[in-house]
Amino acid sequence: MKRQRQKKHACVRTGVGMNQIYFDRLVKEIERQGLDAMLIAPSPDLGFLIGHVPLFCLRFQGLFVTREGDCFYVCNLLTADEMREVLPNKKVYSWFDGDGFIETTRQALSEHGLIGKTIGVSSAVRAFNLLEIMEKIDVRFVSARELCAEIRIRKTPEEASHMNRAVQIAVEAMERTIPQIRAGLYEKDVQDILVGHMRALGAEAGSAMVASGPNSGFAHYNSNTRQLQKGDTVLIDYACVYRGMLSDITRTFFLEEHGERQKEVYELVKKSVLAAEQALADGERWIPAIDRAARRVIEEGGYGTYFTTRLGHGLGYMPHESPDIKQNNERYLEPGMAFTIEPGIYMPDEFGVRIEDCLIMTPEGGFSILSGGLSKDCRVIGRAEA
Amino acid sequence: MKRQRQKKHACVRTGVGMNQIYFDRLVKEIERQGLDAMLIAPSPDLGFLIGHVPLFCLRFQGLFVTREGDCFYVCNLLTADEMREVLPNKKVYSWFDGDGFIETTRQALSEHGLIGKTIGVSSAVRAFNLLEIMEKIDVRFVSARELCAEIRIRKTPEEASHMNRAVQIAVEAMERTIPQIRAGLYEKDVQDILVGHMRALGAEAGSAMVASGPNSGFAHYNSNTRQLQKGDTVLIDYACVYRGMLSDITRTFFLEEHGERQKEVYELVKKSVLAAEQALADGERWIPAIDRAARRVIEEGGYGTYFTTRLGHGLGYMPHESPDIKQNNERYLEPGMAFTIEPGIYMPDEFGVRIEDCLIMTPEGGFSILSGGLSKDCRVIGRAEA
Repeated sequence: MKRQRQKKHACVRTGVGMNQIYFDRLVKEIERQGLDAMLIAPSPDLGFLIGHVPLFCLRFQGLFVTREGDCFYVCNLLTADEMREVLPNKKVYSWFDGDGFIETTRQALSEHGLIGKTIGVSSAVRAFNLLEIMEKIDVRFVSARELCAEIRIRKTPEEASHMNRAVQIAVEAMERTIPQIRAGLYEKDVQDILVGHMRALGAEAGSAMVASGPNSGFAHYNSNTRQLQKGDTVLIDYACVYRGMLSDITRTFFLEEHGERQKEVYELVKKSVLAAEQALADGERWIPAIDRAARRVIEEGGYGTYFTTRLGHGLGYMPHESPDIKQNNERYLEPGMAFTIEPGIYMPDEFGVRIEDCLIMTPEGGFSILSGGLSKDCRVIGRAEA
Repeated sequence: MKRQRQKKHACVRTGVGMNQIYFDRLVKEIERQGLDAMLIAPSPDLGFLIGHVPLFCLRFQGLFVTREGDCFYVCNLLTADEMREVLPNKKVYSWFDGDGFIETTRQALSEHGLIGKTIGVSSAVRAFNLLEIMEKIDVRFVSARELCAEIRIRKTPEEASHMNRAVQIAVEAMERTIPQIRAGLYEKDVQDILVGHMRALGAEAGSAMVASGPNSGFAHYNSNTRQLQKGDTVLIDYACVYRGMLSDITRTFFLEEHGERQKEVYELVKKSVLAAEQALADGERWIPAIDRAARRVIEEGGYGTYFTTRLGHGLGYMPHESPDIKQNNERYLEPGMAFTIEPGIYMPDEFGVRIEDCLIMTPEGGFSILSGGLSKDCRVIGRAEA
């Protein structure tokens, strides 16, 4: 029985239709990686590409892009006409709950010559859907998690300019926030003050993780519920958005005073950031070598066991983009890539220090520390006379 | 180098530790389905089982449960000590960003005799993680999407009682809301009134989708932005929570008046719900037959092409649980199963009608229409004299 598709769906569009530049880059990347096609499930990756992210319940759906530059969409009837509107002139294959998605998917793959071929999958694709396809249809899937990020990895001059603006807003907002931080405030209060300044300075959105005292010893602390006390280490990791591009900065302060060990750990982390930035200044572009330069400092200082994370990550429209800055990402930094350098020492239940700069590789082959205007010196804040 | 794990993580616990009843059922189900183990990624499924859902970024993590009744967790260093606290006496294998997760996962699988074995995966597992494991480790994965739902599929008498309470709250809230609905209100206003009544009556949470006029023609409408007008079809699909258990009901009304076609479609949908409930009363327990009983009515009425969804779905702690009520779910309803019956006719840009009841199979082999107290008769509402 032919079932009526749903003509229009009350969903919010995230963009303005197909991004042809991204699409062309994606097709090129599919070919470069030796794939026959790419499957992209609803996610920001899909939104950046086609300007829309439909609701993604457990029903299988996704955009298939072929190396020949064609594309088609497979989804449930509920989503079919919505996607038809988003992708005019492209084939949308829809399946009905009572039948399941396998036969429709088989037909779609068959019509596009993809039976027996190799398809890369984006990060949002669900394993159980894929396992069902692999069991019943002759097709090979491979992880292509970073392929969608790859098409956004080199920032255009315009994107670089927006990111720089986001970072300058963040830098200025922190300078305005510092004199307002004092013992007695809650972490959440500091967050609100900082986000308020970012918004007032023109950011479209802002967020902040404020980890004080023992909370700073947890790299992923995120509850912002503690009250600040004299002697606290105060680690602030924060971000804002300008024209879609993100900043990402961390600074760690000491409230009213610090002990010997806090100062020692701080200086070690600072030395580590500077070592990575010096390696860049010396012309190093190989990512594992930059990770090594920063990590060696902390290891030689005797705190290697507390540096539990990668050195940094790519940055752009999403808070974590490619390239990861870590020892097993064996690639070179290239013009237009934007990323963070954020070594840290995290001593659970004691304290932790992270210093995070936000950098971009310039078109000329150099690099710019976008957050360089915000001091990385050890700062004691919250004293009455301040 | 041995790296320091993160001792404690500021996360919200969702429960109170391992649910031993669920765990035992899960192990039995793993064996029944011929699997050697099950992999469960962070999700409500994991929360119901172990009482905690850690933050799930793109880094691979998950609980492996073996058919022998053992379990272990694999995660990044950032999450390791958090999970060690949640799973005392269980092995937690942690990996470092700079190394990736494959070697740690291989070691964990090897130590538990799972190399070469078959592992089921829950719905939250990401395909790209699994593809990487499958490429590098000798292990077979199969979709086991419904296995975690299976251990919750038969409601205990206590759960049944909580669900019944949730439904009775919802029924009473709707009766209080109906006299307040009138032309000029926005869909969002109706939502607020209804949710307010449910909260006032003791629900822990409530939600409502209000689709008026042409919006009712979209089965998944969800923006609640339109202003109600005389003659509108007003479709209200709403839910509340009592002690964790959900209700799920839909009723469709007509504002001040209705046309011939609205009435005709309404009566057809009502006849369809009643047909499914009559099939149950006649002793039918095979799910495809119940779907057929309801669907046949709408097909014979000439609107089959507009009944685009499954007939219903399981209900419990989550809005969509097992069993799906659809023609390709070839199983039988059993005591304790709770589910919806919700046929609909959706005519995009015109109007739509859905009537949804919430049912549970009783321990004695019968069934109870929990939402039976809320009339399914055609109701014209919003008239001044009402």
